[in-house]
Amino acid sequence: MATIKAWAVFKPNGELQPFEYELPPLGAEEVEVKVEYCGICHTDLGFIANEGANIIPIPYPLVPGHEITGTIVAMGPIAAQKGLSIGQKVGVGWMKSSCGHCDPCLNGEQNLCINGQATIMGNYGGWAERVRVHWIWTIPLPEGLDIRDAGPLMCAGITVFAPLMELDISPTSHIGVIGIGGLGHLALQFAAEWGAKVTAFTNNPAKTEEIKKLGASTVIAGNDAKEWDSLKGTFDLIIVTAAAHLDWDKIMQLLAPNGKLHILGILYEPIPISVIFLTLGQRSLSSSLVGSRGVMDKMLRFAARHGIKPITEHFPMSKVNEAIRKLESGKAAYRVVLDADF
Amino acid sequence: MATIKAWAVFKPNGELQPFEYELPPLGAEEVEVKVEYCGICHTDLGFIANEGANIIPIPYPLVPGHEITGTIVAMGPIAAQKGLSIGQKVGVGWMKSSCGHCDPCLNGEQNLCINGQATIMGNYGGWAERVRVHWIWTIPLPEGLDIRDAGPLMCAGITVFAPLMELDISPTSHIGVIGIGGLGHLALQFAAEWGAKVTAFTNNPAKTEEIKKLGASTVIAGNDAKEWDSLKGTFDLIIVTAAAHLDWDKIMQLLAPNGKLHILGILYEPIPISVIFLTLGQRSLSSSLVGSRGVMDKMLRFAARHGIKPITEHFPMSKVNEAIRKLESGKAAYRVVLDADF
Repeated sequence: MATIKAWAVFKPNGELQPFEYELPPLGAEEVEVKVEYCGICHTDLGFIANEGANIIPIPYPLVPGHEITGTIVAMGPIAAQKGLSIGQKVGVGWMKSSCGHCDPCLNGEQNLCINGQATIMGNYGGWAERVRVHWIWTIPLPEGLDIRDAGPLMCAGITVFAPLMELDISPTSHIGVIGIGGLGHLALQFAAEWGAKVTAFTNNPAKTEEIKKLGASTVIAGNDAKEWDSLKGTFDLIIVTAAAHLDWDKIMQLLAPNGKLHILGILYEPIPISVIFLTLGQRSLSSSLVGSRGVMDKMLRFAARHGIKPITEHFPMSKVNEAIRKLESGKAAYRVVLDADF
Repeated sequence: MATIKAWAVFKPNGELQPFEYELPPLGAEEVEVKVEYCGICHTDLGFIANEGANIIPIPYPLVPGHEITGTIVAMGPIAAQKGLSIGQKVGVGWMKSSCGHCDPCLNGEQNLCINGQATIMGNYGGWAERVRVHWIWTIPLPEGLDIRDAGPLMCAGITVFAPLMELDISPTSHIGVIGIGGLGHLALQFAAEWGAKVTAFTNNPAKTEEIKKLGASTVIAGNDAKEWDSLKGTFDLIIVTAAAHLDWDKIMQLLAPNGKLHILGILYEPIPISVIFLTLGQRSLSSSLVGSRGVMDKMLRFAARHGIKPITEHFPMSKVNEAIRKLESGKAAYRVVLDADF
């Protein structure tokens, strides 16, 4: 039995504390990855705060972390036959395992596996020396991606990329991105390289120039009625990354006929939806969580080919509490990455 | 100038009264149709009641009626070049005209025309001797459809059929239909002939056998927790035709991964949507209004080929007030059709 060092919270909103746990023998389909870097996602913070306790109860101690990059250090006998090798650089995201035999798995939608397990739900995540993961969710990093900053692609990246594929978004589309943070700054880059016309919505006018460099041709910073009116009925897709209380009626009216409003990020509270605005333009409201293994690979190759990368700020993992405080102050870069230093 | 006899309401919730109006010269792209039959749709009743006054204000006098079948009696010079002929049997539905040159029109989605006009919005509808309609919305009735009962296909029929095409619903799907009335009883027939497994939800257990004959293999009549639980996660599409206050969280959890909840009928009040249930299964909420001209033709041919037809009860148009009272009492057949008797 190997002892693993990790950082855990022991109660809702607790500080991260050193934590050790024992690993059982490695499963036949499992891969053991030495964690080198791990991003901090808002879902980690939501789990630490136990925000959705009535829907997703969090067992403590909780070891967060699901934007992992690192090195394969061990493989079970089945995993060893799946094209992976010891020493290979890989990423691990939200999904820890999928069953392979349910309907979604058999259809290549392993992220929708009805028996699937998440890296940090009932399992110890990536703010640790090592993690164990099913071989199918052990994702080889393609040539050209920097292992230091690829972690956030494994969750934030796939989350904003998958809707472009799943919703059949054409490069001729007009795409809006509401909320330019960890997810949003990647959504802008993916949407622009997708070939789309991109408009960003932010509540921080100071970031306008920076946001344009990320790929937005237009930046709406605020609630100017004229600006909003001029955009009515023009968006084929609006990606909402800010799970805040928004004026949903106003946003839906920005959609073109057949337009899609896609909400990302975990939103536990019901929101009021005026169906009439969906009806009149044959529009839809949808949401999703990460993406399938096939889409994950496509996303990483697309990012490598187009030079899409998270804008990050690094902290040693031992300074995780400090990192979270900076993130919560709103003063950190788009994504914070922890460098494992056990 | 021709004088047209019609039935109109002059104030919200008014009785229908005889009304006459003058027609201007026929437009070049217009077709004049002698009304023989016209269905009563819930949207007619909603307009009579001025239900959505803050979103769609109704100008009075209002001549309702948009489930029309009849005969072409005149055509403008452009309309006359579009394959139609005097004396031809045709149908007219929700759409009176579309511009032909906006984005949706150019893409064959004329029902989403941004300059489109509806048959009963600012125009006098089909509870009248004659109506005028753009040639593109003058729909030839295919061989095998009974003109007496084809009217409800022009609105209720296309409304439930179009989502099967627009949402790319496979015949391998499990389709649920909530609310088995004017729209629902057609949705069951279309879904069953589509090849899908069909489950109906009704609050009227007495109709169970009748509903099975319409194509449902399972009928859920009530709120039995075990029955509902057994259906969790199994529907690829749920069509909601009852615009009542439903338990949306419970309904969304019936959807399979990638499942679609499609709401039909006009719903002015916002409904509370728990986005988390969309997120976890990559599901969507959508809505639509009728369908394009191309889909309209496909629907009519599909209905004729499969013997799909509305179950109707006929009243002379002069008894329209009586017909509405019977409809509102819940004792009428699935669809009421008025026979023009001016």
